[in-house]
Amino acid sequence: MMNSNPQNSEEQLDRVCIVGSGNWGSAIAKLVGRNCKRLDHFESTVNMWVFEEMVKDEDGADRKLTEIINTRHENVKYLPGIQLPKNVVAVPDLANACEDATLLIFVLPHQFLPKLLPIVKTNAHPSCRGVSLIKGLDFDQESKLPVLISKSIEDAMGPYFQCGVLMGANVASEVAMGQMCESTLASKFGPPADELTRLVFDSPNFRVQHIDDVGGAEACGALKNIIALGAGFVDGLGLGGNTKAALLRIGLQEMAKFCRMFFDDVKDSTFMQSCGMADLITTCYGGRNRRCAEAFAKKMQTVGDSLESDYKACEEIWEDIEAELLNGQKLQGTLTAKEVYDVLEAREALDEFPLIRNIFEISYMGKPIESIVEGIVVSGNRAASAL
Amino acid sequence: MMNSNPQNSEEQLDRVCIVGSGNWGSAIAKLVGRNCKRLDHFESTVNMWVFEEMVKDEDGADRKLTEIINTRHENVKYLPGIQLPKNVVAVPDLANACEDATLLIFVLPHQFLPKLLPIVKTNAHPSCRGVSLIKGLDFDQESKLPVLISKSIEDAMGPYFQCGVLMGANVASEVAMGQMCESTLASKFGPPADELTRLVFDSPNFRVQHIDDVGGAEACGALKNIIALGAGFVDGLGLGGNTKAALLRIGLQEMAKFCRMFFDDVKDSTFMQSCGMADLITTCYGGRNRRCAEAFAKKMQTVGDSLESDYKACEEIWEDIEAELLNGQKLQGTLTAKEVYDVLEAREALDEFPLIRNIFEISYMGKPIESIVEGIVVSGNRAASAL
Repeated sequence: MMNSNPQNSEEQLDRVCIVGSGNWGSAIAKLVGRNCKRLDHFESTVNMWVFEEMVKDEDGADRKLTEIINTRHENVKYLPGIQLPKNVVAVPDLANACEDATLLIFVLPHQFLPKLLPIVKTNAHPSCRGVSLIKGLDFDQESKLPVLISKSIEDAMGPYFQCGVLMGANVASEVAMGQMCESTLASKFGPPADELTRLVFDSPNFRVQHIDDVGGAEACGALKNIIALGAGFVDGLGLGGNTKAALLRIGLQEMAKFCRMFFDDVKDSTFMQSCGMADLITTCYGGRNRRCAEAFAKKMQTVGDSLESDYKACEEIWEDIEAELLNGQKLQGTLTAKEVYDVLEAREALDEFPLIRNIFEISYMGKPIESIVEGIVVSGNRAASAL
Repeated sequence: MMNSNPQNSEEQLDRVCIVGSGNWGSAIAKLVGRNCKRLDHFESTVNMWVFEEMVKDEDGADRKLTEIINTRHENVKYLPGIQLPKNVVAVPDLANACEDATLLIFVLPHQFLPKLLPIVKTNAHPSCRGVSLIKGLDFDQESKLPVLISKSIEDAMGPYFQCGVLMGANVASEVAMGQMCESTLASKFGPPADELTRLVFDSPNFRVQHIDDVGGAEACGALKNIIALGAGFVDGLGLGGNTKAALLRIGLQEMAKFCRMFFDDVKDSTFMQSCGMADLITTCYGGRNRRCAEAFAKKMQTVGDSLESDYKACEEIWEDIEAELLNGQKLQGTLTAKEVYDVLEAREALDEFPLIRNIFEISYMGKPIESIVEGIVVSGNRAASAL
């Protein structure tokens, strides 16, 4: 699709607003800020919308987070120790932050979107485009279909708004420290907006490749968290690298199958990008979903038999583990597993996803942890017989 | 290619001989022995050729390894603690071991092949076929081209002999313990020999998928060891999961490119099989190549600057590390890296493989360990610009 946005003419520079300022938002602000200062096509100042909160400062005094960021150029609460470029300006008022913005970068928990998007819509430039860094999926309760968050954003922002995604093997703290990694920008803005958008992120140690398969890239970012639960189960059982590699391989196959079932124009090559296999590997070897699932597996192996293993009991165990290990953060994998399971059940397609099915049923229906192996085997057999 | 071997008729059963009895050979003997006992199409007895040696037995006495295997059904030297099926018979004489064999399983260091294959050829059944489990590549000194080991075996065995390969994420000890994994059989015997060969390996916890891309599968098994050296360098630098995932992704791309450059009928899907991405993951997260390369990186970071970092000095460091960490075993990755580098240099194609090139030059030419990152970045850029 061609894009004839006025910001592509030489007269108007791209004005970037980062909507969100958590761990990942602050890490990406470091890269985007540097690039906007350097690149001709962008206004130097990058607004970063910050949900205002009072934070205990070094001297023990309570200060506004935006004030600290704008004086010390450090998000002391969500990305301490990392210097942000001075041209990144923390703005507590969303309407101000995104005023006349031509490129919006969404990087915040997606439950905040419905409340925020009307404000963004009113204030951003009419020819604005967006990139979502949100890893998750929406689900339409009525149709029982998965909905891309980028699509939800487009719907809320109006008919001319296009939203791409940036997904990849990008643990925020490692990106912030400048460790080399890759990332995938998926967008269909057309030339030159696709390339300009890539350039706003691309950095010597943050290599961004552009593809146009938004659905595949975005869904990978959500679905990998389900597979990471499986990786935690494998680790919790004390199984080695062979079984884990099989889980990743079969997991990637089911991810690809899910994408093809529910989204248009999904391409095989997407799963070989950073947003596909690379992000899956990182998430299944590090990451909080893997870690919590390992703890869940160990707990169930000790106390599992004495438990009423109904949905409610399992949910409580997950909540305990979250409280114990995540310091207030929430698990994404369990939520996504639940929603994906519902979608597949509604479509009577659970049998086609033996691995995802087993991961959910282990997580919430009292299936023994050991059946993670059965999930891999049955899924592998299905795939082989489909050849 | 259709196969009209007489063993496919109902009259003649397949007679299996395993040529080799090390760690992996003994692990696979456990599976093959069980299957041959169970399956109608196979003779129950499986001969396993064992290079005879004297071994200190439990009671302190020196006994022949074959005798111990045939009485206690355990390869006490190379796979201690694992019970072998009684129908697996250790045979010290190669001519006896492979007499009238119709299916040869080669699982031994490939430098032994030239001496052994003439004996095998004389004694095996004329319509015999083979499967190589050897992970490596041959190199033709004259043409400077890589040669598949399965192809070397075919050439030595005569014009009617066909050799497939079994490759995958298969750490021997984990397979022996019965941990679930997948494996890839690549062969072009035609029906029904492909499926019968698959069945001789396939087990409830060892899931074998058949493909016909022998070259791709076999080359993956060798090339992944080069990438694993890179993984060790990344680990040795203290870089995290982001960089490592990027290395694996780019590594798989260069593996695929190498296969397409030198072998026929290589298929994209091969790299998504167990022999491709799964084996690469296992090798880059566990495995001795990764481990020794991590040690090399740490050593070079400490003493590197004070060293004459020529080929000879580097070679000595690798030898020290092998002696220290591998208990007499040899590294495959460094040897393969050397040979692949020579091949690419002869073809003037080094520029097309920035990652493999840098891994070799770090290993043997005194390039700083940090340039592993440059190898990933440059390779990624090349791939992106080729899109």
